[in-house]
Amino acid sequence: MNIDTGMVNAFQEGATDLDPETREMIERRKALLGPAYRLFYDKPLHLVRGEGAWLFDQEDNAYLDAYNNVTSIGHCHPKVVEAIATQAGILATNTRYIHGSILDYAERLLNTMPDEIGHMMFTCTGSDANDLAVRIAQAYTGGLGIVVTETAYHGITQSVSEFSPSLGANVDLGPHVRTVPAPDAYRQGEDMAANFAAAVEAAFADLKRHGIKPALFICDGIFASDGVFDGPRGFLKGAVDAAHAAGAVYIADEVQSGFGRTGDALWGFQRHDVVPDLVTMGKPMGNGYPVAGVAVRPELVEEFGRKARYFNTFGGNAVAIAAATAVLDVIEGEGLTENAREIGAYLQDGIRARAEAHPCIGDVRGAGLFLGVEIVSDRAAKTPDAAATSVIVNGLREERVLISACSKTHNVLKIRPPLVFTRENADQFLAAFDRVLARIK
Amino acid sequence: MNIDTGMVNAFQEGATDLDPETREMIERRKALLGPAYRLFYDKPLHLVRGEGAWLFDQEDNAYLDAYNNVTSIGHCHPKVVEAIATQAGILATNTRYIHGSILDYAERLLNTMPDEIGHMMFTCTGSDANDLAVRIAQAYTGGLGIVVTETAYHGITQSVSEFSPSLGANVDLGPHVRTVPAPDAYRQGEDMAANFAAAVEAAFADLKRHGIKPALFICDGIFASDGVFDGPRGFLKGAVDAAHAAGAVYIADEVQSGFGRTGDALWGFQRHDVVPDLVTMGKPMGNGYPVAGVAVRPELVEEFGRKARYFNTFGGNAVAIAAATAVLDVIEGEGLTENAREIGAYLQDGIRARAEAHPCIGDVRGAGLFLGVEIVSDRAAKTPDAAATSVIVNGLREERVLISACSKTHNVLKIRPPLVFTRENADQFLAAFDRVLARIK
Repeated sequence: MNIDTGMVNAFQEGATDLDPETREMIERRKALLGPAYRLFYDKPLHLVRGEGAWLFDQEDNAYLDAYNNVTSIGHCHPKVVEAIATQAGILATNTRYIHGSILDYAERLLNTMPDEIGHMMFTCTGSDANDLAVRIAQAYTGGLGIVVTETAYHGITQSVSEFSPSLGANVDLGPHVRTVPAPDAYRQGEDMAANFAAAVEAAFADLKRHGIKPALFICDGIFASDGVFDGPRGFLKGAVDAAHAAGAVYIADEVQSGFGRTGDALWGFQRHDVVPDLVTMGKPMGNGYPVAGVAVRPELVEEFGRKARYFNTFGGNAVAIAAATAVLDVIEGEGLTENAREIGAYLQDGIRARAEAHPCIGDVRGAGLFLGVEIVSDRAAKTPDAAATSVIVNGLREERVLISACSKTHNVLKIRPPLVFTRENADQFLAAFDRVLARIK
Repeated sequence: MNIDTGMVNAFQEGATDLDPETREMIERRKALLGPAYRLFYDKPLHLVRGEGAWLFDQEDNAYLDAYNNVTSIGHCHPKVVEAIATQAGILATNTRYIHGSILDYAERLLNTMPDEIGHMMFTCTGSDANDLAVRIAQAYTGGLGIVVTETAYHGITQSVSEFSPSLGANVDLGPHVRTVPAPDAYRQGEDMAANFAAAVEAAFADLKRHGIKPALFICDGIFASDGVFDGPRGFLKGAVDAAHAAGAVYIADEVQSGFGRTGDALWGFQRHDVVPDLVTMGKPMGNGYPVAGVAVRPELVEEFGRKARYFNTFGGNAVAIAAATAVLDVIEGEGLTENAREIGAYLQDGIRARAEAHPCIGDVRGAGLFLGVEIVSDRAAKTPDAAATSVIVNGLREERVLISACSKTHNVLKIRPPLVFTRENADQFLAAFDRVLARIK
């Protein structure tokens, strides 16, 4: 594990068990791309092709992708490929000219949101979306103070990296940022929701005590990097109320939990009976085409919009909108939110059934096709076992099944298959999981 | 003009001379996208199709595009469309897996740079590229202080907007930012280079006087928003030396001036006999596909890379690289840098020839196909004439020729045709220019 950079499942320099071609490509990468890039796995993968839930390496070995949250409707979905190819041949220009498709798409998206949310703005990445949302929130509140969970990831711009503690101890948090413990129902049980709300309240109070006016509370809809905390439903409400009471707005970061991923609705926050002030989205929005955005209550952006025009060269261009429209068509047309709920529950039940024979499985949780499996060395004490977690992640890679891990203690399996995952895919996953568990037992 | 947001050529609310369809779409845009978006022109354009140097509105009227700096090798270039369509059907995943094409492309790009620059990192937008470059520069120098020109535009992230004064007076500059006057050879003559270097030196001294350690000097290779200042060649060197003497690094922002635009070489800075510490690039890199990047001297990123891993979900994905590779193939294969030099000179001569009869043309300048034409009300006093500039820009739009304007005083025509502009296109431009000039005379 690369603790210093906070990254779980990173390839380590100096690994010996690599074939010459892989070793050579890693060296070439280092020479050309420099030292900041990281690869997954003890033995990194060289992938050349993708189709549906499958990825293929240079020898055409098939890997079951149970991790990639971008190509959420399946790698190279033909409807998205066609939409991109067609529109790229017609027009790809920017929002300083009028174009119809961006309006139709914005309208469709806004129709999936609570009525209070009325405008849609477009960026290219989730990082940019959070960066813009924070600018708007700070302009609206006149404050700077930000409260996040302690292993949150919200993005990579300078502003957003300052409130993305999962980037590791070497990336400084801003002086205007406070962290709160993750809403860990596994360890806190019924006290969790009250604890979480109290922590958010205290964090804003501490900001004020230091002369920093509150601006925003931001969390993603499934606490993706904190360890996948999905429930109980509604637990988020107290924290959001605490933020509002402090004069802050609530940004729902749906970059990972959005677009049907959590199985109940298109957006993760909808499981919690809360209405966000801003909603950010990205990753799966274009199934690989860079497109992202911010949905916002009109009153928040009124003054900002008048005073500080927003323009993003590629954000909302006609090709991005074509890709995003095709993705939404497929999610709705093929019932993928429902599939995520159904197959997610099936997969979760399957993993839970393994817990009896395998005491390392401390907890199985999640919503839809976003699952977390807590790996522990002592089930009674709930002791995180990062080493066993790494063995499972890398063991599954040897079984040609791709997942990763998360949480502050690096011991939660992060399982995030495409929304097109079938029951057969789930069975394939579980069979590989059995083989790996048998080896580490 | 929308002075409050610093935007030249913005559509103004309340314009009356609009057809009902345009009016309805503008209303719908406002309702759905909110108040932060701006349109070009007194009469905004609804564009539906593009091909080469031409854009087409919903009635299939053709507009000669002499402005769009993204689709630099022509709208919908078939080789780029094909590259995107093909790769989107094969694989679009991220840099946490090994892939060959990103390495081949990085190698090609680095071969176009000075030897000192050794690594290439990928983002989606020029804003992200500048955001990352600043993070690296600040980490390397241990300083925060930034010096920019007074009407610079470097991007839209929170961090980058703090040193993009062209966003207007309502977007605060950071307390760690100092501005210097643009290198205006038209008004300063032979003193300009020395003035510019002295201003940069003084700005860094002022930062130090306020306890702010210098981090970086950033400028684009053609001073695109400041008013298009191309020469004399080499004038940048003194300013770069002053930055280095202050302990700061020099970021060459090639988002607008890169990829052959300035006609002499692939990069704008190469006209000035300077070696940047970081080079950022974007807009035309994928001819519309969102792809951007940072080239950097290895020593700058060594510690940053070890401590603060960099990952960008879409940055450097295989489709982005395929688009960017096709663009570079076309620029090199079709000799577009040379074409920019040749047609740019022809166009500049043509405009200069009009100056005799039209005293409003105060100065004609630029490099390659990035031209600036200074519009003045008094040629001797060089008095900026923003009103006449707006009349020309909107007059050309009525003639179905697209350009825009820039500079602190909003009086410089910004003419930036695609690199595939032909002599015939230049003649079409000049004919329309004549008709507009005749009307305002």
